[in-house]
Amino acid sequence: MVADEIPGFWAVVPAGGAGTRLWPLSRSGSPKFLHDLTGSGRSLLEQTHDRLAPLVGDRLLVVTGKAHRDAVREQLAELPDDAVVAEPSARDSMAAIGLAAAILERRGAEVMGSFAADHVIDDPEGFGAAVADAVAAAREGWLVTIGIEPTFPSAAFGYIRQGDGLAGHPSARRVVEFVEKPSVAVAEEYLATGAYRWNAGMFVVRPDVLLDLLAEQDADFAATLRAIAAEPHRLAELWDTLPKIAIDHAVAEPAAAAGRVVTIPGAFGWDDIGDFDSLATLLGDAKDATVLGDASLTQLLGASGIVVPQAGRMVAVVGLDDVVVVDTPDALLVTTRARAQDVKQVVAALKDQGRDDLV
Amino acid sequence: MVADEIPGFWAVVPAGGAGTRLWPLSRSGSPKFLHDLTGSGRSLLEQTHDRLAPLVGDRLLVVTGKAHRDAVREQLAELPDDAVVAEPSARDSMAAIGLAAAILERRGAEVMGSFAADHVIDDPEGFGAAVADAVAAAREGWLVTIGIEPTFPSAAFGYIRQGDGLAGHPSARRVVEFVEKPSVAVAEEYLATGAYRWNAGMFVVRPDVLLDLLAEQDADFAATLRAIAAEPHRLAELWDTLPKIAIDHAVAEPAAAAGRVVTIPGAFGWDDIGDFDSLATLLGDAKDATVLGDASLTQLLGASGIVVPQAGRMVAVVGLDDVVVVDTPDALLVTTRARAQDVKQVVAALKDQGRDDLV
Repeated sequence: MVADEIPGFWAVVPAGGAGTRLWPLSRSGSPKFLHDLTGSGRSLLEQTHDRLAPLVGDRLLVVTGKAHRDAVREQLAELPDDAVVAEPSARDSMAAIGLAAAILERRGAEVMGSFAADHVIDDPEGFGAAVADAVAAAREGWLVTIGIEPTFPSAAFGYIRQGDGLAGHPSARRVVEFVEKPSVAVAEEYLATGAYRWNAGMFVVRPDVLLDLLAEQDADFAATLRAIAAEPHRLAELWDTLPKIAIDHAVAEPAAAAGRVVTIPGAFGWDDIGDFDSLATLLGDAKDATVLGDASLTQLLGASGIVVPQAGRMVAVVGLDDVVVVDTPDALLVTTRARAQDVKQVVAALKDQGRDDLV
Repeated sequence: MVADEIPGFWAVVPAGGAGTRLWPLSRSGSPKFLHDLTGSGRSLLEQTHDRLAPLVGDRLLVVTGKAHRDAVREQLAELPDDAVVAEPSARDSMAAIGLAAAILERRGAEVMGSFAADHVIDDPEGFGAAVADAVAAAREGWLVTIGIEPTFPSAAFGYIRQGDGLAGHPSARRVVEFVEKPSVAVAEEYLATGAYRWNAGMFVVRPDVLLDLLAEQDADFAATLRAIAAEPHRLAELWDTLPKIAIDHAVAEPAAAAGRVVTIPGAFGWDDIGDFDSLATLLGDAKDATVLGDASLTQLLGASGIVVPQAGRMVAVVGLDDVVVVDTPDALLVTTRARAQDVKQVVAALKDQGRDDLV
């Protein structure tokens, strides 16, 4: 079953984030959303488009850094020219998604949904069904977030605490609060209650509702976004005056406290591929090393983990468990799944050393 | 103190062996003796020459495979043209050293000493003193081997069992027998007796004595070697008729059994760099990763072991102890010091797969 197109619904795809924990695959000049990290033959951005196109047709707006505009348009060549909005600089998610809302408000969008360009979802139909439910609730003025059913007590994700149901929307639950990334122990308690879901940062809302919620917290912020949408030539002039704040803090948390947020459950598999450890989990079984790329470029002898032969060279790994080997033309990473988070320290060290060519 | 030149003494340097356990640094087309494995700025072959030149001047003969003749002559450009003998094919150490003996017999050498091209010695003066003692005993007709004082119970080396002293040669001891590589437990017993030394394959002997000892075991073998020396144009024709046998089995062991071998103690540091584990021991302290090459090409974060950045790329290693990372332009090795011996299995697998370009 292919999901039906949802009338009046637009998708917003924020395509940002350096993905430094996926260095040297992900670079500031070529962030992770531009890469095929799952071996599917499609980049994460392309997969995001593939997943959304049945729901929105070409009603899709990508918000990305100006450095990546050309690459995004090349990967999504079927979209109209005005489907890609280039930010002059990175100003966090509220500015990016808020600008999209202001643009879509003027284009007459009824409802918008924001979906990151670098997430992986293994059940597009389940995703489409959740989005349809979310849009139905959003039409009534709710800020709707899709909450992912947790499959393990992750300390890497924020959580959504669910409350009562919502009349007329059988799958929806009111959101009591958003909670920050917990410890594993606290996450275990969350899972035991059955009341918590992962916050995947998927917000479905009417553009005017989102901007009005923002205006309640910061009237200037919302007014500036609407001014840019009205006079696009003022983007460069006004953009740097916008606060750098995540949409979670700027809108979602205050709105939840005011009882204006609901959540729709998402039972589909979801991952944000934060680092090579989560990538290995996503791709592989635990027994043998997973090769992302051409397996004929590898010689694996008593090795498990993940090997990425991306430089065309032979990569031999002998006698290492849970190893991470990422071979690119100008940089090589060797680490373990357990230390995958520390890769960002390598990127920081390279920046300190002035090696901007490598990060 | 620089060692004195030893009149009538010639050095023979067998430069062979693929060094497959040092892949991908060592290749069949570029074996380990051509590489600077100690970061000294000189290849192992050049270091061998540097060590011998004070003792022999230019009375040095390198025996190598024909594929390596040009590389050897390039590295040792100061030697005369006839200082490099090219074997048509690899026929083990008796043929190589025996041919050198036959050539030197005709050149009027009084004594010769055979010293592998890929060993590392940290005390050239101690080495020179031991060689001088060995030459003195060899002049009287003994087959003399330099026995290295063991510093740990190695299972990677053969051993020499010493017996009585030798009148007129205070440092010399008779050799009771040569023994094969023992287990570590047996090696510990050897060390406890104080009667055993490592067999470093260094033989000092009169050329005629060596060939006559060989003739006692295999008269045709010795006669063929002398025929080649007399008529060098017959090398290609006669070479492949020679037995493939190590000098240890062909001459040294039978001569020891006949009471005709003595040993001179070598107290200098010695290593044959069999694999990346022994290379790491030789170069590094155990705490941090040793970089063989340009350290500015590495980012090491909680890493110990050995890193060889030889491809000009940045090599980042995070959170791995006793790791081995060898980065070359067309092949990468990632393993552990404990598994360093298994690198030869990678080479075997590549050969099986027809990847002769990589081995």
